[in-house]
Amino acid sequence: MSSYRQPVLGILGGGQLARMLALAAAPLGVKTQVVDNVADACAGQVAPLIQADWNDQAALDAFAAQVDVVTFDFENVPAEAARRLAGKVAVYPNPDALAVAQDRLTEKTMFRECGIATPAFMPVDDRAGLDRALAEIGAPAVLKTRRFGYDGKGQFRLKTLADADAAWAALGASAATHGLILEAFVPFQRELSVLAVRGRDGEFRTWPLTGNWHTDGVLSLSLAPAPDIDDLQIRAAALARTLAEQLDYVGVFALELFVKDGELLGNEMAPRVHNSGHWSIEGAHTSQFENHVRAVLGMPLGDTGVRGCSAMFNWIGELPDMAPVLRAVDGHWHDYGKQPRPGRKVGHATVCAPDAATLAIRLRDIAQALGREEQAEPGLRALGGTSA
Amino acid sequence: MSSYRQPVLGILGGGQLARMLALAAAPLGVKTQVVDNVADACAGQVAPLIQADWNDQAALDAFAAQVDVVTFDFENVPAEAARRLAGKVAVYPNPDALAVAQDRLTEKTMFRECGIATPAFMPVDDRAGLDRALAEIGAPAVLKTRRFGYDGKGQFRLKTLADADAAWAALGASAATHGLILEAFVPFQRELSVLAVRGRDGEFRTWPLTGNWHTDGVLSLSLAPAPDIDDLQIRAAALARTLAEQLDYVGVFALELFVKDGELLGNEMAPRVHNSGHWSIEGAHTSQFENHVRAVLGMPLGDTGVRGCSAMFNWIGELPDMAPVLRAVDGHWHDYGKQPRPGRKVGHATVCAPDAATLAIRLRDIAQALGREEQAEPGLRALGGTSA
Ligand SMILES: Nc1ncnc2c1ncn2[C@@H]1O[C@H](COP(=O)(O)OP(=O)(O)O)[C@@H](O)[C@H]1O
Ligand SMILES: Nc1ncnc2c1ncn2[C@@H]1O[C@H](COP(=O)(O)OP(=O)(O)O)[C@@H](O)[C@H]1O
Ligand SMILES: [Mg+2]
Ligand SMILES: [Mg+2]
Repeated sequence: MSSYRQPVLGILGGGQLARMLALAAAPLGVKTQVVDNVADACAGQVAPLIQADWNDQAALDAFAAQVDVVTFDFENVPAEAARRLAGKVAVYPNPDALAVAQDRLTEKTMFRECGIATPAFMPVDDRAGLDRALAEIGAPAVLKTRRFGYDGKGQFRLKTLADADAAWAALGASAATHGLILEAFVPFQRELSVLAVRGRDGEFRTWPLTGNWHTDGVLSLSLAPAPDIDDLQIRAAALARTLAEQLDYVGVFALELFVKDGELLGNEMAPRVHNSGHWSIEGAHTSQFENHVRAVLGMPLGDTGVRGCSAMFNWIGELPDMAPVLRAVDGHWHDYGKQPRPGRKVGHATVCAPDAATLAIRLRDIAQALGREEQAEPGLRALGGTSA
Repeated sequence: MSSYRQPVLGILGGGQLARMLALAAAPLGVKTQVVDNVADACAGQVAPLIQADWNDQAALDAFAAQVDVVTFDFENVPAEAARRLAGKVAVYPNPDALAVAQDRLTEKTMFRECGIATPAFMPVDDRAGLDRALAEIGAPAVLKTRRFGYDGKGQFRLKTLADADAAWAALGASAATHGLILEAFVPFQRELSVLAVRGRDGEFRTWPLTGNWHTDGVLSLSLAPAPDIDDLQIRAAALARTLAEQLDYVGVFALELFVKDGELLGNEMAPRVHNSGHWSIEGAHTSQFENHVRAVLGMPLGDTGVRGCSAMFNWIGELPDMAPVLRAVDGHWHDYGKQPRPGRKVGHATVCAPDAATLAIRLRDIAQALGREEQAEPGLRALGGTSA
């Protein structure tokens, strides 16, 4: 008998992404160790949890000594903390890639260097800077914090130039702490994300493009493969590959794209597994969670092909009744074990089907049983014909 | 926001079955609490573990107070311990069903009451009893312990009547402690198992029949759906249903069957999730683990339809190289996080495909890459034509 030692994956952040990473790591024989600053972080239900602040160097050093590889459930871990860890243990994605993605300004600048078109953007440092940016970019526009924004938080939409005061009232105080950026508002036809994974050896794979719909800035519904994508798959995958190579990225990431008149515009990248890839747990041969674990541990990447068509409902604030999803053919429930709270991501459900027409029927049936017709509606429209 | 409290599932036994139950419970929002008498039981890597002996009443009482429902990873929990727990908390399957399945004599007697044919059998209490049973049943035959046998342990095969002394030398000492049974040896053409689940409300479902091959009494390879089953599916499912109703069974169980000249003979039932159902994690819309959790917690049962064809390799003793499985299209690795030891079940791998011909190719490729042609060979033969 050969000796056997299980690798240990350390995860910074203990939310639902860490939880689903830990669930995917276990069958690979990988143990997980989570760090979060909250004692009841939901990943702690399925993996050992250390409660520590990101700035607690002693705690992070002790964590580093316990694990073989460190990765992230949360992209806003201070880059210095990530760099310090990288001096002691393998950290993937690398802290420089993380730092680029943490700041919308460096992120969009990097996109352009990689040949990824973006909405027009300009940094905003003060009230006068906002006026200069608005003069350059025009309205409608979106003022965003450069750092720490998520789920549409830290954003203000300006319909006209007259909204400048309101925008500054909302976000001006963040200029000094988080930085601000003004972006042209893009009247896109659709939003897509490329889920991609790159191995330690440079092997690169993408899942089929995902179509996404947001409500109040939060992901509400995804379809994969996104219907009617023609050549967008190849173009989007090429952009993601260039970006990954430029950043020497290892692991799974999502590149969020707007499609406007056939053009692809980069919105942001998530340097981690991403909400728009949750369908891959049941809908793909290898999920984003499993491939992230494989990638950061240097295992061979898994096949990213799909099993058919999938739709994912995001559950925000609180969970609806689980029964209609449990009863649906190929319906899958994901409760993150979190207390309900307005705006909080508490779970999701995925329904799969062999083809788009069957998926439309299942999606509609679940939506009707839950009284969630509105949430399913854009997906049903995209799937063609079948309306709720 | 409505209030939210996660149900807690208690599992007696902390091996790979508990581990996979816990992994299936998490997405349903169900917390798991495991009890095992070994501190490093592998389910403890994914769920909190209490170390306690099955006879430690105080520990079991404390455990009962922490959980909503109790179930089993291990069928040889003393029936009295299960009954005691059932006085305090819901226990599924019920302790009487467990007790029937714990003893090959009561089990086969129950099979006959349910109209399930069995090999000829007779209890053996002493050396003279063995001679009487052999005179009745003839040779070849198998002497087995009535209780505590698993993975072919506690069995002795008698080719001729002259093997009686050797059989007694091997198992006679167990007559007083475990009881003995002599069974006719069945020269079967194939072995099948019915995986079935019954809900608290009596809803009953089966997965497609699984074809199984054993090596040295231990499961080595499974194929699902079992090829060429004709009307066996309906007949086997009906037997399983009668049995489940007779026992008022709740949860997943497996009924192991021999097929001889078109006749179905009941070998044994496993009152729990079963090794021959591991393919269902990726190969079915709802896995045996998820449906067991759903059943014992009173949730709606999930669809037991398949995604195509699946083959499962069991890894006994130690794990082979994981890379060929990770690289295979729709190949899935399951490392139980156990130290290698001769005869120990340490993991399994499942490979799925849209059809039997594609499955045969994938199965053969993995087997060749691992030097496991012998293990795959009966499956390849059953899949037809393609030989390793
Ligand atoms: N420049 C823009 N033009 C149009 N819509 C936008 C723009 N920026 C953001 N949005 C919308 O808001 C959503 C959330 O914004 P995003 O920049 O992705 O921030 P977050 O980090 O919160 O996901 C996007 O998915 C998109 O629907
Ligand atoms: N009466 C029998 N005739 C032929 N083969 C048998 C018989 N009993 C057991 N076997 C073989 O041995 C294997 C293990 O025996 P089983 O009774 O199922 O014990 P266990 O509890 O160890 O699984 C069976 O799956 C079958 O292959
Ligand atoms: Mg976004
Ligand atoms: Mg058996």
